[in-house]
Amino acid sequence: MRRALQLAGNGPAAGVNPRVGCVILSPAGELLAEGWHRGAGTCHAEVDALAQLDPAAARGATAVVTLEPCNHTGRTGPCALALIDAGISRVVYAVADPGRHSSGGGDRLRAAGVDVTGGLLADEVEVFLADWLVSARLGRPFVTVKWASSLDGRAAAADGSSQWITGPAARHDVHLRRAAADAIVVGTGTVLADDPSLTARADDGTLLPHQPQPVVAGDRPVPADAAVHRHPLAPWFVAGHDPNALLRELHERGIRRVFVEGGPTLASAFVRAGLADEYLVYLAPTLLGGEKLALGDIGVGSITGQRRLAIDDLVRLGDDILLIARPASSQTPTTDHTAPALSVTEK
Amino acid sequence: MRRALQLAGNGPAAGVNPRVGCVILSPAGELLAEGWHRGAGTCHAEVDALAQLDPAAARGATAVVTLEPCNHTGRTGPCALALIDAGISRVVYAVADPGRHSSGGGDRLRAAGVDVTGGLLADEVEVFLADWLVSARLGRPFVTVKWASSLDGRAAAADGSSQWITGPAARHDVHLRRAAADAIVVGTGTVLADDPSLTARADDGTLLPHQPQPVVAGDRPVPADAAVHRHPLAPWFVAGHDPNALLRELHERGIRRVFVEGGPTLASAFVRAGLADEYLVYLAPTLLGGEKLALGDIGVGSITGQRRLAIDDLVRLGDDILLIARPASSQTPTTDHTAPALSVTEK
Repeated sequence: MRRALQLAGNGPAAGVNPRVGCVILSPAGELLAEGWHRGAGTCHAEVDALAQLDPAAARGATAVVTLEPCNHTGRTGPCALALIDAGISRVVYAVADPGRHSSGGGDRLRAAGVDVTGGLLADEVEVFLADWLVSARLGRPFVTVKWASSLDGRAAAADGSSQWITGPAARHDVHLRRAAADAIVVGTGTVLADDPSLTARADDGTLLPHQPQPVVAGDRPVPADAAVHRHPLAPWFVAGHDPNALLRELHERGIRRVFVEGGPTLASAFVRAGLADEYLVYLAPTLLGGEKLALGDIGVGSITGQRRLAIDDLVRLGDDILLIARPASSQTPTTDHTAPALSVTEK
Repeated sequence: MRRALQLAGNGPAAGVNPRVGCVILSPAGELLAEGWHRGAGTCHAEVDALAQLDPAAARGATAVVTLEPCNHTGRTGPCALALIDAGISRVVYAVADPGRHSSGGGDRLRAAGVDVTGGLLADEVEVFLADWLVSARLGRPFVTVKWASSLDGRAAAADGSSQWITGPAARHDVHLRRAAADAIVVGTGTVLADDPSLTARADDGTLLPHQPQPVVAGDRPVPADAAVHRHPLAPWFVAGHDPNALLRELHERGIRRVFVEGGPTLASAFVRAGLADEYLVYLAPTLLGGEKLALGDIGVGSITGQRRLAIDDLVRLGDDILLIARPASSQTPTTDHTAPALSVTEK
């Protein structure tokens, strides 16, 4: 399964289809074939692996696949059927397919007499496929909410000045993560206050190969000379501050991974609505005091309503600290994977 | 010098005198004697080491000592003179003695023809003696400011509820650090809101051997049945919120290490006054939002006035994170030691 997960990583990160890997093993456990999904319109990982074998070679073999084989005829036929036809006698998968049209492959295989086991390395594959799974289960993009603050939770000094709270290593990290998102969302308040370009840039200022779609949410007018207008992709403007409506809109436009970058009003709205799947909190070793908080009202009245997080990683970036967290499992309606072991990484 | 620092650690932690260690080496570098200071009224480390040698055995030898030998006749004679009389030809020390009455030992030794070198392992000894050095240089206690907050900088939820933001491992750590302080200071607001006992307790609730002196600062009346009245030491009540006046008062009463534990008003007053020598920030993986901030107005108007810190350690305590920091060297009027290498510790 670990090899299958590696193979899955060969697939394209930004796409509507999940990245899936498959390994086919002989009854004696020898490796017969490997495959992975190369993107929409190409064959699925299982079929990709089977295609490398003579028609009879898979008889009695085991298919190890990161996602439950699909039961769906789209641009390709159902993988469950392909596995049955090839004579596969055992299927091991990590994560069940939550797709509305594609689920049920496991049952179909079982009905055909195939021995089916799910859940192997499910935690790792859940993390690997987090964005696609959120999209398939909830019909909305995977949301990363990012902010940078002082140790005392301020995003800026009392007069609004904030350049730079975090250092170059933290800013570099933000740009790499922007590049991994389909869209980057800011509120009109942030555009008016900071005039961000919303591009993903290398240290020398050049644009990284993949640029996120810039999205500006809110009702205040954005000046014609705002830096966001010089983004290589024409910005989308979405009225209002309702995160649910915003995500619906973005999902319809094919966005699967959203990077919510500020400011405090927008971040708080996402947290309040329970729509943050991942948190990136960059903490600078500084104190600012005052009223310019990185997060405002998130709808918590009492300690019993606190938003507990599970910290996945704690990374030192120069003088700064990056906390990567997600909603603690007991409180999140959006994901159901278990907390992996805590780790501390130094960069 | 590293051995001398180890020996210094044998001395009593809570005392008015510095903990000092001394090693005497023959001209060939062989260990002749070791000594350390055992507390006020007993002989100093150099004399303790010399006392183990025949009167002539130290002739031409080298004394390695963590603090510049004193030049002061108090309850014991000046160590500089004792070293000269013993015929020591070379003295190596780490940190210069900043004492008003005791400094000048190095000069006195040099005037007597002794080869004197200062500064060896100075950084480590500065950290080891931080509280005594602050006291000797600035005439006030060493101040640790501690708070616990959510990741977004809140000390409590909107309705004031805060039990428990941090987990048992973090609370255990706080109690151990309380026990290492001479006094623990809270504001009257915290006494009224949380009714803390201000004791240092083990996990099973029993009192640790050393209890800090409880100090309540502020003007609001404290009820007769407040838990602080049941502290084994009768609490001191100090009117007002002026940290300078408070520290002067505590210093006069022999307090050398103060643990400022809250609440936000008192902590902010210490930070604003530049009187925090060490920060202990316990961060819980939770979000609270709202108005109950762990730190309020610290007198920073613009980003150029930010209070930069240097992080000495980052410790995971259960689900929580402890940041140990001090004012970044360029900004601190209170300490002059250089930043040691960053480290990440896992507990």
